[in-house]
Amino acid sequence: MSKSLVTLTPLGGLGEIGMNCLALETETSMILVDCGLMFPDVILYGVDVVIPRMDFIIERKHKLKGIVLTHGHEDHIGALAWLAPYLAQTPLYGSEFTLRLALKRLQERALETRVVVHPVQGGERVQLGDFGVTFIPVCHSIVEGFGLGIETPAGRIVHTGDFKIDRNPLDGHATDLETFSQFSKDGALLLLSDSTNVEREGFSLTEREILETLDGIFAQAQGRILVTLFATHIQRMQEIFGLAAKYHRRVACTGRSLVTNIEIARELGHLRFGSHNSCELEDLTRLHDDQVVILLTGSQGEPLSALSRASRSEHSQINIRQGDTVIMSSRFIPGNTRAITRVINDLYRQGATVLYERVQAIHASGHAHQEELKIMLKTIRPKFFIPIHGEYRHLHKHAELAITQGVAPERALILENGQPVTFSSTGIRFEDPVYAESILVDGKGVGDVGQSVLKERQILGGEGLVIVLLVQDELGTIVFGPSVQSKGFIFEQHFDHVLEDAKCIILDIMESNPQTEVHKLEERIRSALRRFFRTVLDRDPIVIPLIARV
Amino acid sequence: MSKSLVTLTPLGGLGEIGMNCLALETETSMILVDCGLMFPDVILYGVDVVIPRMDFIIERKHKLKGIVLTHGHEDHIGALAWLAPYLAQTPLYGSEFTLRLALKRLQERALETRVVVHPVQGGERVQLGDFGVTFIPVCHSIVEGFGLGIETPAGRIVHTGDFKIDRNPLDGHATDLETFSQFSKDGALLLLSDSTNVEREGFSLTEREILETLDGIFAQAQGRILVTLFATHIQRMQEIFGLAAKYHRRVACTGRSLVTNIEIARELGHLRFGSHNSCELEDLTRLHDDQVVILLTGSQGEPLSALSRASRSEHSQINIRQGDTVIMSSRFIPGNTRAITRVINDLYRQGATVLYERVQAIHASGHAHQEELKIMLKTIRPKFFIPIHGEYRHLHKHAELAITQGVAPERALILENGQPVTFSSTGIRFEDPVYAESILVDGKGVGDVGQSVLKERQILGGEGLVIVLLVQDELGTIVFGPSVQSKGFIFEQHFDHVLEDAKCIILDIMESNPQTEVHKLEERIRSALRRFFRTVLDRDPIVIPLIARV
Repeated sequence: MSKSLVTLTPLGGLGEIGMNCLALETETSMILVDCGLMFPDVILYGVDVVIPRMDFIIERKHKLKGIVLTHGHEDHIGALAWLAPYLAQTPLYGSEFTLRLALKRLQERALETRVVVHPVQGGERVQLGDFGVTFIPVCHSIVEGFGLGIETPAGRIVHTGDFKIDRNPLDGHATDLETFSQFSKDGALLLLSDSTNVEREGFSLTEREILETLDGIFAQAQGRILVTLFATHIQRMQEIFGLAAKYHRRVACTGRSLVTNIEIARELGHLRFGSHNSCELEDLTRLHDDQVVILLTGSQGEPLSALSRASRSEHSQINIRQGDTVIMSSRFIPGNTRAITRVINDLYRQGATVLYERVQAIHASGHAHQEELKIMLKTIRPKFFIPIHGEYRHLHKHAELAITQGVAPERALILENGQPVTFSSTGIRFEDPVYAESILVDGKGVGDVGQSVLKERQILGGEGLVIVLLVQDELGTIVFGPSVQSKGFIFEQHFDHVLEDAKCIILDIMESNPQTEVHKLEERIRSALRRFFRTVLDRDPIVIPLIARV
Repeated sequence: MSKSLVTLTPLGGLGEIGMNCLALETETSMILVDCGLMFPDVILYGVDVVIPRMDFIIERKHKLKGIVLTHGHEDHIGALAWLAPYLAQTPLYGSEFTLRLALKRLQERALETRVVVHPVQGGERVQLGDFGVTFIPVCHSIVEGFGLGIETPAGRIVHTGDFKIDRNPLDGHATDLETFSQFSKDGALLLLSDSTNVEREGFSLTEREILETLDGIFAQAQGRILVTLFATHIQRMQEIFGLAAKYHRRVACTGRSLVTNIEIARELGHLRFGSHNSCELEDLTRLHDDQVVILLTGSQGEPLSALSRASRSEHSQINIRQGDTVIMSSRFIPGNTRAITRVINDLYRQGATVLYERVQAIHASGHAHQEELKIMLKTIRPKFFIPIHGEYRHLHKHAELAITQGVAPERALILENGQPVTFSSTGIRFEDPVYAESILVDGKGVGDVGQSVLKERQILGGEGLVIVLLVQDELGTIVFGPSVQSKGFIFEQHFDHVLEDAKCIILDIMESNPQTEVHKLEERIRSALRRFFRTVLDRDPIVIPLIARV
């Protein structure tokens, strides 16, 4: 590999919104940008999270100069805990807030010593082997987000991180287009840009607009106000604390992730509120309803969250009642819609009024819409463009958008995970794909739940199973059974005749084949019973025949 | 029950969008309005459909004078097949098209003789015992939909069916507000009205607006056009045939439900197209790409549908290619979003451009928005109001809307399934709730999959299972096993050491308790293994110990 070559390998985030992870390497250096996880589809039976395959990184860890984190959302930092066991004193760069969140995750698994954190400020530049990385502030739905200006032997690369363009955000942490422009003024080789909202026209709503809507709601509310939001949306929380002060209300917080993040954000100066402005959940009973704000978890309808429990009257301290206004100030993630609407319906049943994105502008996306994406493209004017952070259609549409903004069609590259591309000062070359499948994490098991196990879970979950047990002595006489048990199949008390009929079928097979080998008998029983259940019930459970010869 | 009393019992559709079913009775007569099914949440393991509990109807079938169907969507006719076995020559009323769809479902199960169909025209009135039912045309996303004007001993009741207000629809079948108004002019006791879109402001888009957008797409398309839509949306199909003729294209259709419905609709005069305008799928190869339209199933991303298979290159006759335009002209039902976006991404990978509601106005809802709901309320001016066809929050908001339109707050009633209410000429009375749970249908089994079976499927599907087999002789000596098998648990080839450790635990238990009763031993093994798996893997599979003593 020549000194002026840089290879970029997407390991996650290109083809899905989640598990962002990108490797940049020269002959002697590698840096990793983000290492995130993804929450699985509901159809991924029992899988907790999905992470990028780490082999590529581990094989090259000798030249890993550092891991650069753009911001603290789980889809950018959440997979570090599965990479950390393979690391030794690896430097971790990012903003103070980002690193605090990342470190918390590692501490939970006693892995914090595997890394060394280096908090950076906006505008700061660090040299990591062959890479010079400048951290450029971007506005996003979490505090202290950064885009990256990366100087490489092949040229300058800009990585937007997750961003929107709000020139006058409430927290003052605007997307720093001047620095992006300055970094690119002598020519940017490549722009990697957030594709999440490429299907949305115009500009995203700003937090100022959200604040205005929220102010209107606070002004009108007669009773208690309950607010749920993403536990990392510190700016929005500050708006809530501000409005509470304005309308002489106190804020009580509940839900572990929310409380922890509030502590960190307050310590770092991102959240400002006083004791006159807050209180404990226990103290709420001493206040009038119009003096109360409750900030609580449950924006995605999570069954065990504070809001869900309250909606089902199962929360020991929060009883929803007539007059309550519940503000769900976050996006509905598609897979969660059913769970969320169930919570909303239950809250209405208890007498509350519920406000959510569909009925009122109380959430703004943290990702740039089309016009903002164009501004970024015009600011950087890159030679090459690679859309990141999106499903395939988003990447495709973002590439098309880049072409309308002057990127040459052959230089707008749609990559997918595991497709490396090498840049030199003169051109590009696609390398052989690397193995970049998603790894499923279930409990403590990483990768032990593969496609075959998932397939079995799918059948078990949809059809249930039937177990047949039978013991024969050496003469072939049945000395125990057949006993037939089922799980997740039918309600046995009312349908035991079906299982009785199954026993007759088994006995018939045994009688006609007394000396046949066990595995052949088991196979015959399996297919006969499957045929039987399909005929009488139109179902196809997993059938497990167990024949013991003693 | 006095002669002037009418009791209304919602059996489905109040609290969910789906399985609409409403009973109206006097002392001697009963009619049923609709008998629909619901497709389950993805989380309902293996359940095919959900239907209303039929006991209430069956207990009163001696006075059932007829079943009135408002229109032919599955959530209004789909549960008839489960009621029909209990019926004998029950009259079925509805439009010709509605009855054809309903009858098709019954014929599939050889149940068509259980009912006698009576097709009615718009404006027609039939007397069913104490009830005089007038069928009033409404515009909806299916042809020949009706609302109902029901004369009862207690007063006049209006049931909107599913409706929107389009005064000038393409098929001429407008919502007949004049007849609604005429029916109610001497006072309507009660309005039952469609709540689906109560959260949406203004007016719904009209089919004329959709047609205009589709025309623009047809005008620009260079290659083939593929269109997927709901298989009952005959009006939209006519638009597609019309546009195909205008732009000199031929339409080929594929997908069973689509082809059957097109045949019925054509026979009844709702679809007009000629042989110059259509062709078979096989003939497409003889046409240029710009002469082709393919109408196909798969609007909800159903894995086995024509469009899904084509998107994965698994369709024998349709290969997606560069230049294809795919139009998904239907709503994304929330639970299907993941499946649909997967299809869209795959279509883009194959080179197609995909248009869908989010990016272009190519679908209009068939349900009235707020302003249309107000028009209906003002047209009927009912004394009482009961919102129907909605989840709880929709019903709540529709009741609030009715109050703003002049319904007295105490007369805007939010009912849930199973809550009967009796109307007399002087007032109302809530009756004791009836048992109205949803019945789960899995294969041929109706109601045999209850909550306990679902719970088992949930665990099996999320965690898998482990089976332990062991045979002891009369002295307590182990003569077979322990053998340990798993399904949907871990990838055994790589993790067999976990199962080996499990065997040691089992042997320990057996050795320390040689003479213990079998069920106690099984319980000990179960809890020891669950503890073990939780500790080493953080998982909790179903453990089934089987000990045979011979």
